[in-house]
Amino acid sequence: MRFDMNNTVLRQMFRTLARLIISACAVALMTACANQGSAPIAGAEVNSQPAYVSTQSVLPSWQDGNARSAILKFISDVTREGAPSFVPTEARIAVFDNDGTLWSEQPIPFQLAFMIDQLKSAAPSHPEWQRSPAFKALMAHDVSALAKNRKELLQMLSVANSSMTTEEYDQSIRAWLASAKHPTLHRPYTDLVYQPQLELLDLLRANGFKIWIVSGGTSEFMRTWVTRAYGIAPEQVVGTQEKLKYVVRDGKGVLMRQPGFDFVDDGAGKPVGIFRAIGRRPILAFGNSDGDREMLEYTATGPGPSLALLIHHDDAEREFAYDRKSPLARFDKAWDEAVARGWVVVSMKRDWNSVYPGPKAAAAQ
Amino acid sequence: MRFDMNNTVLRQMFRTLARLIISACAVALMTACANQGSAPIAGAEVNSQPAYVSTQSVLPSWQDGNARSAILKFISDVTREGAPSFVPTEARIAVFDNDGTLWSEQPIPFQLAFMIDQLKSAAPSHPEWQRSPAFKALMAHDVSALAKNRKELLQMLSVANSSMTTEEYDQSIRAWLASAKHPTLHRPYTDLVYQPQLELLDLLRANGFKIWIVSGGTSEFMRTWVTRAYGIAPEQVVGTQEKLKYVVRDGKGVLMRQPGFDFVDDGAGKPVGIFRAIGRRPILAFGNSDGDREMLEYTATGPGPSLALLIHHDDAEREFAYDRKSPLARFDKAWDEAVARGWVVVSMKRDWNSVYPGPKAAAAQ
Repeated sequence: MRFDMNNTVLRQMFRTLARLIISACAVALMTACANQGSAPIAGAEVNSQPAYVSTQSVLPSWQDGNARSAILKFISDVTREGAPSFVPTEARIAVFDNDGTLWSEQPIPFQLAFMIDQLKSAAPSHPEWQRSPAFKALMAHDVSALAKNRKELLQMLSVANSSMTTEEYDQSIRAWLASAKHPTLHRPYTDLVYQPQLELLDLLRANGFKIWIVSGGTSEFMRTWVTRAYGIAPEQVVGTQEKLKYVVRDGKGVLMRQPGFDFVDDGAGKPVGIFRAIGRRPILAFGNSDGDREMLEYTATGPGPSLALLIHHDDAEREFAYDRKSPLARFDKAWDEAVARGWVVVSMKRDWNSVYPGPKAAAAQ
Repeated sequence: MRFDMNNTVLRQMFRTLARLIISACAVALMTACANQGSAPIAGAEVNSQPAYVSTQSVLPSWQDGNARSAILKFISDVTREGAPSFVPTEARIAVFDNDGTLWSEQPIPFQLAFMIDQLKSAAPSHPEWQRSPAFKALMAHDVSALAKNRKELLQMLSVANSSMTTEEYDQSIRAWLASAKHPTLHRPYTDLVYQPQLELLDLLRANGFKIWIVSGGTSEFMRTWVTRAYGIAPEQVVGTQEKLKYVVRDGKGVLMRQPGFDFVDDGAGKPVGIFRAIGRRPILAFGNSDGDREMLEYTATGPGPSLALLIHHDDAEREFAYDRKSPLARFDKAWDEAVARGWVVVSMKRDWNSVYPGPKAAAAQ
């Protein structure tokens, strides 16, 4: 019996992280140079039309259309007792990607912004970094120098985000979230959740669904804020898993964060993460990029009724526009598969009346 | 950044499994030779006395004494609003080991009995095994020959319990549980859950606790039956994790079981498994062996009130008696730590009026 670990996902994570960091620095550079003001964020003026009788009041931020109709029809189908499409409550499992599906993820995933800030905060304790070409490149927003020194940068990131207890790390995430602002939208990151999705989560819960977040980010990062933001309990978060070691420190049992990951919850990892955490196949999955493709496929090829949805970020005015050629969160293969299999592609521009919660959305509820 | 996996736990799992299999075969040999009848299973005649006013009706299978009093006092403390010991509902996390804590585990953990039966069932598809010294030793209950060929036996076990989808494996567990019987008690394995623990689970739930099973067994094995047996949902099971690979087969996304484990949920692995699944430190932990020591320590050294409990299997008449010198599920270091730290040691003989559910227990409820 061989116990060798699957290093493929780790290599993939390494490459992905490296690519993201380079992108992050490019964006930081652009942002610094442009010194631009706040991007406009406003709800569209279109009023939603009822898809079904007596559903006017649900999903008010969803514009009437194929996406909204498909959601309402699916919920109606699986909750109608006696119908062949009926699904008992305990099997009403819904899974949502987080970055780009429940909140924004541009210009870089917000957890990565946090990790880079952790590295900067840790720098005074690491005087040796001052001589590091990678650190110098990061501070100078020198993208080409970063690309040349990315392995060293990853090592520094890993050090800055480990060697502490999970409780200390948790505190550092909370402290960061309390003060950090998005580089171009100039709002706290936790403001950048999607209003239409909050309404969908509420509607699913009201119809007996249990909802999990299934994200490439780490569970630990998400758990500090998802209950407040989405009403989702910490134990309903499935994410990438950092290495941990149990030790006793000052008479107290604690978990020390170790460099590296034990499990990467992305791509073909998502069905594995779902099965391990939930033990059942979901009947609804919502994503936005190629990293969600397998999660949607796993959901959509189950034995009973299912609904697979993907957000297309096509709204540069209210949020961001990126798809097939995006260096991160690429939406390409998943788009092709959506077309081929009849999955629902949600256009942020056409299907959502509003993007972020605001006075207008709050008043409408 | 190094991505090497922690092979220590895997080596440990390998050694443990090898030891268990040898024990299993020794037991099978003894059972075959003795050809003994059914062991007596009966509730004791002692009636429980109320620990507190108005608590007569709770925990009827628990004999009045330190253990029952400690449980009732703890529940009262953490649920009394306004008291310094009050714990809000969302933090009322309880974790229970499974084998030996919620159901019996002798003469060998029941999942291991299943795995060996899987191996025997798979034998016709593996004619090469007929020539294997390990397989011959297993079929002949030849313990010393098994000890010499344990690596080969582990390889066969691993093969017999992989190379199928999670859904196929799930069906094979259900089929086995429906017909398999305990070798000496001659009852279905799922009958061998502990009546006093069923009452404790009910009482905790009634007081706002959310309960997880945290076991060295695999989540997959437990999830097929724990909801029916204990009222615990599949997603509240934390266990050892087999390797899985997502593939598309006949157009359907499935998870193929691979040989080996990604995570071993035992000893110092239990706090890691708890943190990853729940994200919070429990306030109540219940175990019965050295493999639970770190879980109890992690729980008992948390910042607020906590209760750590261990069952001492000292009841050879109604169940089994084993502790410091047991080759499996040894209760030695955890016992010492319980004494040193004031954890509650539950004597099965003195603290439980009944062991398994029966007509008497059912009538009392």
